[in-house]
Amino acid sequence: MNISVGHGARAPRPIRTVDLIAKKRDGQELSADEIESFVAGYTRGEIPDYQASAWLMAVVVRGMTRAETSTLTHAMLHSGEVLDLSQFPQAKVDKHSTGGVGDKTSLVLAPLVAAGGLMVPMISGRGLGHTGGTLDKLESIPGFNVNLTVEAFRRVLGGSGCAMIGQTSEIAPADRKLYALRDVTATVESPYLICASIMSKKMAEGIGGLVLDVKTGSGAFMKEEPDATFLAELMVETGEQLGTKVVALITDMDQPLGRLVGNSLEVIEVLDILRGAGPDDLRELCLELAAWMFYVGGGAKSPEQGRTKAQELIRSGQALLKFRQMVELQGGDPRVVDDTTRLPHSRYTRDVTSPQSGFINQLDCRAVGVASVVLGGGRAKKEDAIDHSVGIVLHHKLGDGVSSGEPLCTLHYNSENQAAEAAALLAKSFHIEDDARPVRNPLIRRVISG
Amino acid sequence: MNISVGHGARAPRPIRTVDLIAKKRDGQELSADEIESFVAGYTRGEIPDYQASAWLMAVVVRGMTRAETSTLTHAMLHSGEVLDLSQFPQAKVDKHSTGGVGDKTSLVLAPLVAAGGLMVPMISGRGLGHTGGTLDKLESIPGFNVNLTVEAFRRVLGGSGCAMIGQTSEIAPADRKLYALRDVTATVESPYLICASIMSKKMAEGIGGLVLDVKTGSGAFMKEEPDATFLAELMVETGEQLGTKVVALITDMDQPLGRLVGNSLEVIEVLDILRGAGPDDLRELCLELAAWMFYVGGGAKSPEQGRTKAQELIRSGQALLKFRQMVELQGGDPRVVDDTTRLPHSRYTRDVTSPQSGFINQLDCRAVGVASVVLGGGRAKKEDAIDHSVGIVLHHKLGDGVSSGEPLCTLHYNSENQAAEAAALLAKSFHIEDDARPVRNPLIRRVISG
Repeated sequence: MNISVGHGARAPRPIRTVDLIAKKRDGQELSADEIESFVAGYTRGEIPDYQASAWLMAVVVRGMTRAETSTLTHAMLHSGEVLDLSQFPQAKVDKHSTGGVGDKTSLVLAPLVAAGGLMVPMISGRGLGHTGGTLDKLESIPGFNVNLTVEAFRRVLGGSGCAMIGQTSEIAPADRKLYALRDVTATVESPYLICASIMSKKMAEGIGGLVLDVKTGSGAFMKEEPDATFLAELMVETGEQLGTKVVALITDMDQPLGRLVGNSLEVIEVLDILRGAGPDDLRELCLELAAWMFYVGGGAKSPEQGRTKAQELIRSGQALLKFRQMVELQGGDPRVVDDTTRLPHSRYTRDVTSPQSGFINQLDCRAVGVASVVLGGGRAKKEDAIDHSVGIVLHHKLGDGVSSGEPLCTLHYNSENQAAEAAALLAKSFHIEDDARPVRNPLIRRVISG
Repeated sequence: MNISVGHGARAPRPIRTVDLIAKKRDGQELSADEIESFVAGYTRGEIPDYQASAWLMAVVVRGMTRAETSTLTHAMLHSGEVLDLSQFPQAKVDKHSTGGVGDKTSLVLAPLVAAGGLMVPMISGRGLGHTGGTLDKLESIPGFNVNLTVEAFRRVLGGSGCAMIGQTSEIAPADRKLYALRDVTATVESPYLICASIMSKKMAEGIGGLVLDVKTGSGAFMKEEPDATFLAELMVETGEQLGTKVVALITDMDQPLGRLVGNSLEVIEVLDILRGAGPDDLRELCLELAAWMFYVGGGAKSPEQGRTKAQELIRSGQALLKFRQMVELQGGDPRVVDDTTRLPHSRYTRDVTSPQSGFINQLDCRAVGVASVVLGGGRAKKEDAIDHSVGIVLHHKLGDGVSSGEPLCTLHYNSENQAAEAAALLAKSFHIEDDARPVRNPLIRRVISG
């Protein structure tokens, strides 16, 4: 029984990591000093991984107060550089999604909102597991460079009002280190840690307004709406406490968003939306998210006005023009905008057909994401390479009536083995029944604002 | 949101550490396979410390079932060598204490019970924090070697029926590694982990019977009796499930045991007891523990018979003779038995006197232990050296009446600074009031057997 000797100490002692861990283990609230000491010590490498992971697990199980959550977010935000974009006159806004299947809204929103006069300094992530990543989708555009220095990021922002890059080593280093540790210690699943991770990175972009797209449903990280709502409220409150206007939309991820899943396929669908075409659900979500981005950034007096503005920017072609401009400034081939055959495409295609006639009453959204990974379009491990050309085209979605033998979806693939495995997964993911089940969740389930 | 891709796997997958951690995080029961895979993987160095500490924290907060606790104990026990002492005809028994102040019973019990015809293969620990350690006390005997190989241990056991050594690298390596990690990650305080740690080490001694001395009170690790009782029951059940007869005594640690605290001072008191003298509380506890050791080892038909046997072995001088024999076989100077001036002694002594007349109604037992550490008799850190000569002689204990200016205790010390600090601590640790408080906890609060 090791019990430390404390009585002899006279001077105020430095904060001992083991005491911090014990305090959280026992469900007590940590002081701001304690949280800041932990984040700074871990970022500097003074606190070892094994102490950090014990602390993280204590946080996962015991939770955090609102004050602790915002102190943690603040400490992680200030563990690195916070962008100062005050040289640019525009209001700066961004959007963040908790991740889903077929979610390519970021690629629409950055140019769309920049075309409307706001600045969108978007720092995004890569796909891991069954969800896709914005950076991977962008990299399917030949030449597109997401690895910009902060200075280059600033230049692109100055040129087009939007830029889309990966996390740099200067931004929130505490989060990068903690996230890697959480991933291997089963400490990802905590709304408090998720909030601090997302909000510290987003607020380091130097933005004044943020719209969160918190997914819920079979393909989402938070399967249950109350969990998604709890996280959304936490992030909205934390953002407000740290001085950023935040709005969260709880949106449906019971089926993939849009009809195309896979990196270059999703870029094609983005271009469709920017042209005023594309699937209804994707367009609807893009318009709503843009509406709130305009609103939180002061570019519209109401979300309704923001939505009208977004529709007009698409109709006039200004959003598409902005996309082309951003692609060019980031080293990508702008000709893909007019000629999508310049995007990588797979060698083969193959249909998955319906085994019976009836109605699609369930679609295992996560399985569709996994099928895309199996084809090579995503990563099972961080080190895996990506095949940008593969993916899935969904011909039918929830509620649709289908006939026996009719194609449900088409695989774009380069390997027969991968295609066979993905096809088997997809065949199981469509649940077809004789009668249509009428009730479906609305795409936007609720809006939470501060 | 990193979600691993699992659907594609067809063969039964190996147990992933992150899944084990998540399962315990969510309060689920782990299978035997899972626990064994964790212990084996960690011992072999395949599972890193940062995953182990997250798992340990999940166990601390979520707890374990009885089945998990005994599987964990079994896995830790079999992480290394389990002694086979079947070459010796005697029944093998041992005693383990959860640690206290002035607790020198092990040094009495090993020779006493061996003198009664049982074998006592005792593997002990060092002091850390405010509690003393059996090995440190033994090492105050000039020449006494606690670092025996398993073969030398066997030889001493063959010669005297008892031997007292430190943990070897062969015994329960999983525990040594886990314990070092628990110490720095605030994951010591879990009855399940404490049970597995103690029981795996003790059962690796190849014993058939074990008596546990679970301390409770101000100087104990478990301050509250219900916590001590819970741990005791857990250890008794775990021992029984793994085939060892275990009895636990919940004993009082609201004040130091005996009158002498400090390494060589405690050896002097051990010799007093083995001669039939010494303080009542220490003698009483030694006799009770010996009684139960004889009983669980089959050396007595009842604890009462065991007690009578122990008393007789002391009265006849056989216990003291056995002590001398063990000291000699382990390289120590046997002359200390007759001449305690051969033990290290401090240069100076100094009294702490009572500031008022009255009754001692409280004695901060932990503070007495800390004072001994401050004098140099214990370790604040594992690396610290020990001064075997220093310590504290208590002249009064709970319930005693004292006059103003009368010595409460005497410090044996080598440094004035240390003595001043220790004296200040001790002065505060005696609470003297005008009226005697009548109720005192019994020394042996309860006995728990399987």
